[in-house]
Amino acid sequence: MLESPDHILIELKKMADEGKFTPFRNIAEHYEAADLAWALGRLDDRSLVLAFRMLGKESAAKVFVEMETDEQELLIGALTDRELRAVVDDLYLDDAADLIEELPAIVVKRILKNTDPQMREQINALLRYPKDSAGSIMTPEYIALRRTMTVAEAFDRIRKIGLDKETVYTCYVVTKSRRLEGVITVKDLLMAELDDKIESLMERDVVSFKTLDDREMVARAFDKYDFLAFPITDGEGRLVGIVTVDDAMDVLQEETTEDIEKMAAILPGDKPYLKTGVFATFKNRIPWLLILMISATVTGRIIAGFEAALAAQAALIAFIPMLMDTAGNSGSQASVTVIRALSLQELRFGDIFKVVWKELRVSLLCGVFLSLANFIKILLIDRLLFGSPISIMMAAAVCLTLCFIVVVAKFVGCTLPMGAKKIGLDPAVMASPFITTIVDAISLLIYFAITRVMLGI
Amino acid sequence: MLESPDHILIELKKMADEGKFTPFRNIAEHYEAADLAWALGRLDDRSLVLAFRMLGKESAAKVFVEMETDEQELLIGALTDRELRAVVDDLYLDDAADLIEELPAIVVKRILKNTDPQMREQINALLRYPKDSAGSIMTPEYIALRRTMTVAEAFDRIRKIGLDKETVYTCYVVTKSRRLEGVITVKDLLMAELDDKIESLMERDVVSFKTLDDREMVARAFDKYDFLAFPITDGEGRLVGIVTVDDAMDVLQEETTEDIEKMAAILPGDKPYLKTGVFATFKNRIPWLLILMISATVTGRIIAGFEAALAAQAALIAFIPMLMDTAGNSGSQASVTVIRALSLQELRFGDIFKVVWKELRVSLLCGVFLSLANFIKILLIDRLLFGSPISIMMAAAVCLTLCFIVVVAKFVGCTLPMGAKKIGLDPAVMASPFITTIVDAISLLIYFAITRVMLGI
Repeated sequence: MLESPDHILIELKKMADEGKFTPFRNIAEHYEAADLAWALGRLDDRSLVLAFRMLGKESAAKVFVEMETDEQELLIGALTDRELRAVVDDLYLDDAADLIEELPAIVVKRILKNTDPQMREQINALLRYPKDSAGSIMTPEYIALRRTMTVAEAFDRIRKIGLDKETVYTCYVVTKSRRLEGVITVKDLLMAELDDKIESLMERDVVSFKTLDDREMVARAFDKYDFLAFPITDGEGRLVGIVTVDDAMDVLQEETTEDIEKMAAILPGDKPYLKTGVFATFKNRIPWLLILMISATVTGRIIAGFEAALAAQAALIAFIPMLMDTAGNSGSQASVTVIRALSLQELRFGDIFKVVWKELRVSLLCGVFLSLANFIKILLIDRLLFGSPISIMMAAAVCLTLCFIVVVAKFVGCTLPMGAKKIGLDPAVMASPFITTIVDAISLLIYFAITRVMLGI
Repeated sequence: MLESPDHILIELKKMADEGKFTPFRNIAEHYEAADLAWALGRLDDRSLVLAFRMLGKESAAKVFVEMETDEQELLIGALTDRELRAVVDDLYLDDAADLIEELPAIVVKRILKNTDPQMREQINALLRYPKDSAGSIMTPEYIALRRTMTVAEAFDRIRKIGLDKETVYTCYVVTKSRRLEGVITVKDLLMAELDDKIESLMERDVVSFKTLDDREMVARAFDKYDFLAFPITDGEGRLVGIVTVDDAMDVLQEETTEDIEKMAAILPGDKPYLKTGVFATFKNRIPWLLILMISATVTGRIIAGFEAALAAQAALIAFIPMLMDTAGNSGSQASVTVIRALSLQELRFGDIFKVVWKELRVSLLCGVFLSLANFIKILLIDRLLFGSPISIMMAAAVCLTLCFIVVVAKFVGCTLPMGAKKIGLDPAVMASPFITTIVDAISLLIYFAITRVMLGI
């Protein structure tokens, strides 16, 4: 059984102290590439390079792919041309293209110099697809069969060309001009007779995507259909590559992290937290903080307009944070729920009336419940316990405000993300901080309108 | 090529109008189960049952699995015992167990009555694992091989028992007492000679999990290792089941939705948004709204303590929303980033000093930048444009407060989730709303302390 990856790190540190990494070659055999990469990344630069050199040719490429960009850059700088060529030769094409996209130009030049011309051409083709397209995450290394083949011939072909393919389990049946005709799995082949024809076994109704389709849409399709790979065709219906389930999982994870960051008013970064520099983190966080701070001018102006009234009835000021926070929380509950349902494709824009109707009823329940709870709280805690001079009329005004703003906040919270989706903006931006700023202003206006009428201030 | 699932719905509605669903059998053949389930779910109850009856035996089970719980319940009520048995027989065991977990007891009784005894026993065994354990998402339907087999014998075995297995591509080598000895993929088998022995080909260093391991941990391992399945062993190291990549994707999606809901102060529900009733949604949202509203008593008391001062210098009130929102946003940026990194296992508790040191520098940059921007804003917008009577000293006090509270908010935002993780709580609860309530109070205290010293109020 496999031991924990911490164990590799302990062994590696011992070797670093002794200055001898030869035992690493034998230890490495027993571990997964991801764990080896994790442990190597925790060594100092010199030990990292020395230990990496001990890896066998095949596992070197696997470990290399799993490393962080800055470690890859370090290795590329330290390896000889010959060592580098060995690593790059063993990369899958889509991994090579990803690598090249992230590394600085001068490093990329050295990699491409050490790539054979055919691979270089294929990598360049992949790099031409837009960043968020299906083309950018596909690999051209798939198994193509002909409809006229027998099962035995198909197995021969898989045996011959399968070693370098990212998956052999889903095979695609294409015409001479590479037009996609069908799909067949190795399971189907195993269950069939050796002299059966592919055309009698293949599935003709193939779920496929185009190179320019959104990569998140393709990744979500794995959730829906439980396949291991999807074929990607060009504008003329010719098969140009496949997207495999492991790449789809990476896409979903990245897209979800981006959504979460946007919901928290952060510009999405592309590196893990600890690998992002202080200044890069600052740059991702400051724009929304600044925009939201400036927008608070509106709430400031609203309060300024009521300064005299507030100065006269100072007890009203104490409720402002509670009202603003409750409005913000109510609104963000609705917006975050709707944003997530949109990104999981459980909701479409056409559902907007169902959503508003539902949120209206939920918000009335929440609003009435919170108002009553708050009324009791004011009576028991504020008046009895702390002896605050809050009149029953004032308490009623605060609670009525509370009920109104919860309803308004939930309405704003559910409609803004759906509206954003409709006009082609990212719904995730319409989350808590943005909604909070809007409902803050509305809440204050409602508060002052109600207190003016009820308390005559 | 496959047409869009909307097409099925149009056809089905046409059939419902004509009251004849026989053509559905032929149409259904050309579509994926997930799309058929989606379209059926959009029919009225009667049409849904009539159309479902038209599906062939095998595709009926596949479509059934993809449906929502309330549609499944409807169908179970409408099908005869014989029809029901046909559907249940063709379910994978883990799907059957999931189904039973979600349906009401009376429906479950009817299902179990229509299940053969061996399957019933296996389903019951699966149901005994805790809800969030690896055991609860595994299936006992895997392919087991012996180390002494040849490749040809292994292929024979796969052909014989593979049809009912969720995956045939990863096979597990076990001893007579079902102890896990190794793993071998169909790709390895295809690349080998037919008379090679399994023991010379199998990988002995197997990444495996225990039945009681957390299901999210197992699902994250798919991200890390790019495998199609992981073996699950019991306390004695005996293989009892496997978790496949499609189930892992479902788990990751559910866990992420739960995290997002918790971050937005919502108790996680288990149904899609539109399928959750109004009262259920209310129940998931009201607890945190209530707790946070009551906690706002603290901010209310702080303000009440300064009422006299605020009434005297009423211009100070107008900055309260801006200060509170900026503090809340700064804090939630840090907390959400840390929570996501913890759940992706990029961070451990041991990294806390690195995290605090980083957030300290980022927050100083943000704080200083926002203070300067706010100073200019007060001079240009508030004083020049609106003619507010804000003294330079007052502006300076506000900006100094701003800088302090951004630093404090980011500190609170990054430490609370890590602390929660350490003591075994869910870090996701320590997100925006919770952090906002805490930093609101701290911000007000800082604001009043600074204005008291600088303005002598």
